[in-house]
Amino acid sequence: MRQTDKDRTRESIQIKPYKKDASYSYTLGAFPTYELILNKPKEIVKVLIHSGYTDMDNLKELCARNNIPVEINDKLIGRLSDKDNCYVAGVFSKYGCRLAKDKPHIVLVNPSNMGNLGTILRTSLGFGIYDIAIILPGADIFNPKCVRASMGAMFSLNFQLYNSFDDYRRQYDRHDVYTFMINEERTVDIRDCPKSKLFSLVFGNEASGLDDSFLEVGTSVMIPQSSHVDSLNLTIAVGVAAYEFTR
Amino acid sequence: MRQTDKDRTRESIQIKPYKKDASYSYTLGAFPTYELILNKPKEIVKVLIHSGYTDMDNLKELCARNNIPVEINDKLIGRLSDKDNCYVAGVFSKYGCRLAKDKPHIVLVNPSNMGNLGTILRTSLGFGIYDIAIILPGADIFNPKCVRASMGAMFSLNFQLYNSFDDYRRQYDRHDVYTFMINEERTVDIRDCPKSKLFSLVFGNEASGLDDSFLEVGTSVMIPQSSHVDSLNLTIAVGVAAYEFTR
Repeated sequence: MRQTDKDRTRESIQIKPYKKDASYSYTLGAFPTYELILNKPKEIVKVLIHSGYTDMDNLKELCARNNIPVEINDKLIGRLSDKDNCYVAGVFSKYGCRLAKDKPHIVLVNPSNMGNLGTILRTSLGFGIYDIAIILPGADIFNPKCVRASMGAMFSLNFQLYNSFDDYRRQYDRHDVYTFMINEERTVDIRDCPKSKLFSLVFGNEASGLDDSFLEVGTSVMIPQSSHVDSLNLTIAVGVAAYEFTR
Repeated sequence: MRQTDKDRTRESIQIKPYKKDASYSYTLGAFPTYELILNKPKEIVKVLIHSGYTDMDNLKELCARNNIPVEINDKLIGRLSDKDNCYVAGVFSKYGCRLAKDKPHIVLVNPSNMGNLGTILRTSLGFGIYDIAIILPGADIFNPKCVRASMGAMFSLNFQLYNSFDDYRRQYDRHDVYTFMINEERTVDIRDCPKSKLFSLVFGNEASGLDDSFLEVGTSVMIPQSSHVDSLNLTIAVGVAAYEFTR
């Protein structure tokens, strides 16, 4: 049987703790690893299983059906994860996606926290928004912390990275843009805002929000909130907005 | 001038890294410390300031007006905080509150994550729900990680700890209870659910949710979500529920 490129990659990768410039990343834990296997089997290099994992036979069978190599390696799992209760890890090649032109998008401008980014991916999937643009610089979506916080949701989504909002906008110019920021009297309450079917919901960085260049873009929307708080947490703002726009 | 009990406490407390059974805790960072000073000045033992803090004069003046001792102590701040950019800390005595009988409540049953608990407090305040019950065992609301995640929101809220949901319910028996869990065909979609003004929104633990004993309690409510996710993150569920019930 001829050896494929994928086979050679699988053999040759030296598995080390994650680095941003590596060509591969990991799922840590059984739940995100199952999501990886079910949604992106072709990107998987190898599935690592701890010898103490209780559901080993099922996982091995699932991997065999998908032609995915399996390795029992307690030490390597221990090295990759900082948690004691990690029994399964999936090593996968980083991959690219394209956003759907005819579906709503969430656009995250310079998101900085990997846990937040993962939670946003999971939330977005939960409310049926499957296409996410990330404007760089931003948190590394492939970092295992983000993958774990997403609970593997990222494998069911399309995501695409852009160097600027203009780059994103040039590619998707038919979407109605809603920016989550205050623009004086032009700001619309999210409850009253006329909602189109093809929308982009745009959110800024956790600390600094969207800068003034976004004042000229689309419709400014706000989520009503008491004067006691400075702002809502970014993940909560995305959650409420996704809920309201798909309500 | 006679020395008060508070003065004696202020002098005698040996400030050490936080422990759950300590009688005091900390705010770490300027924002939550200002919230502490503005909302709970009488509980403050001392405000610590780093010599490099740029807004020192204003903070000193605010403390003087509230009769709060100030100490410049770079080393102690460094010991209390694991972040390099912490320039202000507030040491405060732990205190108790009582929930308002005639206001809506959020009830968290066994919340386990301090960051989530803090984010929920901030979100609750943002949507104008000011009374939070926590059913133990649960994350320590006074832990500095929770205080920080709440951005000091906890100082504007009432919170009360209970050993069981029944204990809570005996004290507040006029609230209409809404449990966020699935109860077969009796589950109501949150969008269609008739909403009373005096409500308790009840949420379970991050991993295990609410147990079956809650099936007999109040109205089961669900937030509609795609079949792709197991469940929404607890903080997102609380955020969307608080938004929808105060909409």
